[in-house]
Amino acid sequence: MTLLSRYDWKELRDFCIKLFKKRGVNDENASIIADALIEADLRGVYSHGIVRTAIYLKRIEEGMVDPSSCIEIINDNEITTLIDGNNNLGAVVGKQALNLALKKSDKKGAAIVGVKGSNHFGTGAFYAAKSISQDKILLVMSNASQTMPPTGGIRPFIGTNPLSIGVPTDKEIPFILDMATSVVARGKIIVASQKNEEIPLGWAVDRHGKPTTDPNEALEGSVLPMGGPKGYAISMMIDILSGVLTGAGFGKHINNMYENWGQPQNVGHFFIVIDIKQFIPIEEFKQRMDQYIRDIKSEPKAEGVKEILIPGEIEYKKSEEQKKYGIELPDSVVEELKDLSQKYGVEFVSKKVTSSIK
Amino acid sequence: MTLLSRYDWKELRDFCIKLFKKRGVNDENASIIADALIEADLRGVYSHGIVRTAIYLKRIEEGMVDPSSCIEIINDNEITTLIDGNNNLGAVVGKQALNLALKKSDKKGAAIVGVKGSNHFGTGAFYAAKSISQDKILLVMSNASQTMPPTGGIRPFIGTNPLSIGVPTDKEIPFILDMATSVVARGKIIVASQKNEEIPLGWAVDRHGKPTTDPNEALEGSVLPMGGPKGYAISMMIDILSGVLTGAGFGKHINNMYENWGQPQNVGHFFIVIDIKQFIPIEEFKQRMDQYIRDIKSEPKAEGVKEILIPGEIEYKKSEEQKKYGIELPDSVVEELKDLSQKYGVEFVSKKVTSSIK
Repeated sequence: MTLLSRYDWKELRDFCIKLFKKRGVNDENASIIADALIEADLRGVYSHGIVRTAIYLKRIEEGMVDPSSCIEIINDNEITTLIDGNNNLGAVVGKQALNLALKKSDKKGAAIVGVKGSNHFGTGAFYAAKSISQDKILLVMSNASQTMPPTGGIRPFIGTNPLSIGVPTDKEIPFILDMATSVVARGKIIVASQKNEEIPLGWAVDRHGKPTTDPNEALEGSVLPMGGPKGYAISMMIDILSGVLTGAGFGKHINNMYENWGQPQNVGHFFIVIDIKQFIPIEEFKQRMDQYIRDIKSEPKAEGVKEILIPGEIEYKKSEEQKKYGIELPDSVVEELKDLSQKYGVEFVSKKVTSSIK
Repeated sequence: MTLLSRYDWKELRDFCIKLFKKRGVNDENASIIADALIEADLRGVYSHGIVRTAIYLKRIEEGMVDPSSCIEIINDNEITTLIDGNNNLGAVVGKQALNLALKKSDKKGAAIVGVKGSNHFGTGAFYAAKSISQDKILLVMSNASQTMPPTGGIRPFIGTNPLSIGVPTDKEIPFILDMATSVVARGKIIVASQKNEEIPLGWAVDRHGKPTTDPNEALEGSVLPMGGPKGYAISMMIDILSGVLTGAGFGKHINNMYENWGQPQNVGHFFIVIDIKQFIPIEEFKQRMDQYIRDIKSEPKAEGVKEILIPGEIEYKKSEEQKKYGIELPDSVVEELKDLSQKYGVEFVSKKVTSSIK
C-alpha cells in the first residue's frame, strides 16, 4: 500500500535547484538539472524524476561528478562535433551538446554531436521536447552502465541504452518516442522496489539468470532486452555510437552510478538534429504528421481498447494534468526528499493534495 | 520435406542480370539489382534474395516500376539531400542515394539523404556493407507497405519498416545490424509459405486478429511488432523519417508490391552516413570495436550456448560458406526461376551440389 501525495511542480523545481546549489552547482546548471528531473516527473516518468536527486548529489559529494568542470569541444568540424563533458552532470553536458547541435543545424541544416565524459543525462524526452520547440527532429541516444545480458549470456554486460526521437506536429500532440532498449526501463524496477511492488515475469532475471518477480532480486540480476536479440542489437548500436565512437566508456567500461564509488561513469551520448525545412516546408511536414497520427487513430481497435495511442501521448497528457494538480509522489520518495531537506538545510515544499491510496 | 540444392552465386548473379536486361533495365542497373538480391542470398537472407526476382520483373512488366526513369535530386543542401527515385527500382535508387551520401560525407564528415518515389530496396545490409568498405558508419532505414497493426489495433497499418546499421571493425567480423521492426521479417513468413512450413506462435495474427501458425493465414493477416509498443514506436519513427519527412508514402499510403497493380509503391528511405575519423582516428575506432566484440564474446554463456554472437556474424559466415559451396535454394524457388528462364529465354544456371534434405 502506497500513499501518494501531490506537490506543486514549480515548488519541487525550486527545492531541487536549491539542493544542487548547496552542492556547488551554479545557478544556470542547477536549473538545467532541476528541469530535467521535474519534466520527467511531470510526464509521469518518475523513475527519471526527482527520485534521482539523492544519487546525483551523492555522486557530487563523493567526488564522482564534477559540477564545476568545463565542458570542452574536442573536435569541431563542419557537421560533426565531439564534446568532452569532463565529468560534469549529465543533463548539463547533454543540454550543452543539444544547444550546440541545434545552433549548428540552423546554419548547416543538420548536425551530429557525440559526447564523452558524461554522466546519467536523464530522459531523452527532455532534449526531444526542446528540439521540437525549434521545429527540428532530434534523434538522441545514450549508453548506460551494465544491466542486460547479451543474447546467450547470463549476467549484465550492456546498458538498457535509451533511444529517443522528437518530432513536431501541427495540431496533434508531438511525437516523442523515449524508450529503454530493455523490456522495461530499469528505473521502473527501482520504483517498484521503492513501492514494495512485484514486477511481471519476463522483465528481468536474478543474479543466477533465473526469472524473477522480486524487484530487488531483479536489481541484483539483469533486465532483459526487448524483443530478445533485436533489443540486444539495438542496444549495441547505441553503445557503438554513444561510446565506441566518442571515446566514452562502452559495454562493461561504463561505471555504475549506484555502485562504483572509485571512478566517474564516463557515459557517452549521441545527438542527431535534422532541420525539417531542408527536406520539405515545415507546415507541409506538420500537416503530414497530423494526418499520419489521425490515420492511426482512426484504425479499428482491438476489444477493450478505447483509443490507439501515439508515442509520447500518455506522457503529454500526464504532464498537462500534473502541471495543474501537482506531481504525484509516493511516500518513500517524499521521505528521501525530506532527509535531503534536513541534510542540506533547504526547506521542503508544501503538500498540495492527498490524491489517492493504492 | 524440402529439397535444397546449391548454385554458384556468380552464375545466379549473371542469370539475374540477364533477366532484368530483358525487361529493359540497363547494364549498370541490372548489376545493382542482381548484387542486392544475390548478396542477400549469400548472407542467408533468402527472403530478400533471388526469390524477389519474379515480383520485381512483374512490377516492371505491369508498368508499376519504371526502370528507365531518371533519379532526381530535389533538394541539395550542405548536409542534407532529398532524392526522388521517380519510381525506378528500389535498389537502384537506394544505391544512388548511398553513393551520394558517401561522397558528400567525404567532404562534410557526415551526410543525410532522404528518398521518396522508390520501391522495395532489398536489405539494409547491402548498403551497410558498402559503407563499411569506406570506413564509414551507415544508419539506413526504409518504410514498407502495411503489415503490422499499431498497438491497440487489429489490422495491418504500418510496415515492418527495417532498420540497419553497418560499422567497420579491425580484425573482428564487421557489425551489421539489419532487422525488421516486426518479431520476424515478413519475408521469413513468405519463405515458410514457400517451404510449406509452420511458423511459431507469436510471429503473426490472422486477418481476424487471432494468433496463427499457418504462414498463409499470417500473410493474409498481420505480422506483430517486436517488443509490442516499442517495436510499433520504432516502426513509426522509421516511417516518419523515410516517409513523412521525404514526401514519400507513409502508413497506409504505401502501396503493396504484391497486391496493388494500379499504383507505384512510393516507398521512402533514409540514409545517415558518418565519417568515423571526424570523431576519433579510424584505427583507434576499429580497435575499440574489436575490444567491444571480444569483451562480449568472453562473457559467461547460458547453458547450451556455444558462442555469444554479434549482429551480422551468422550472415557473414554464411556468406563465406555460400561463396565457396554455392547458394542453397529450395526447389520451389528453383521452379519459379526456371519458369522465368523459359519466359524470358534466359538459360538457367547449372546445379552444383544437392546438399541436404530437411
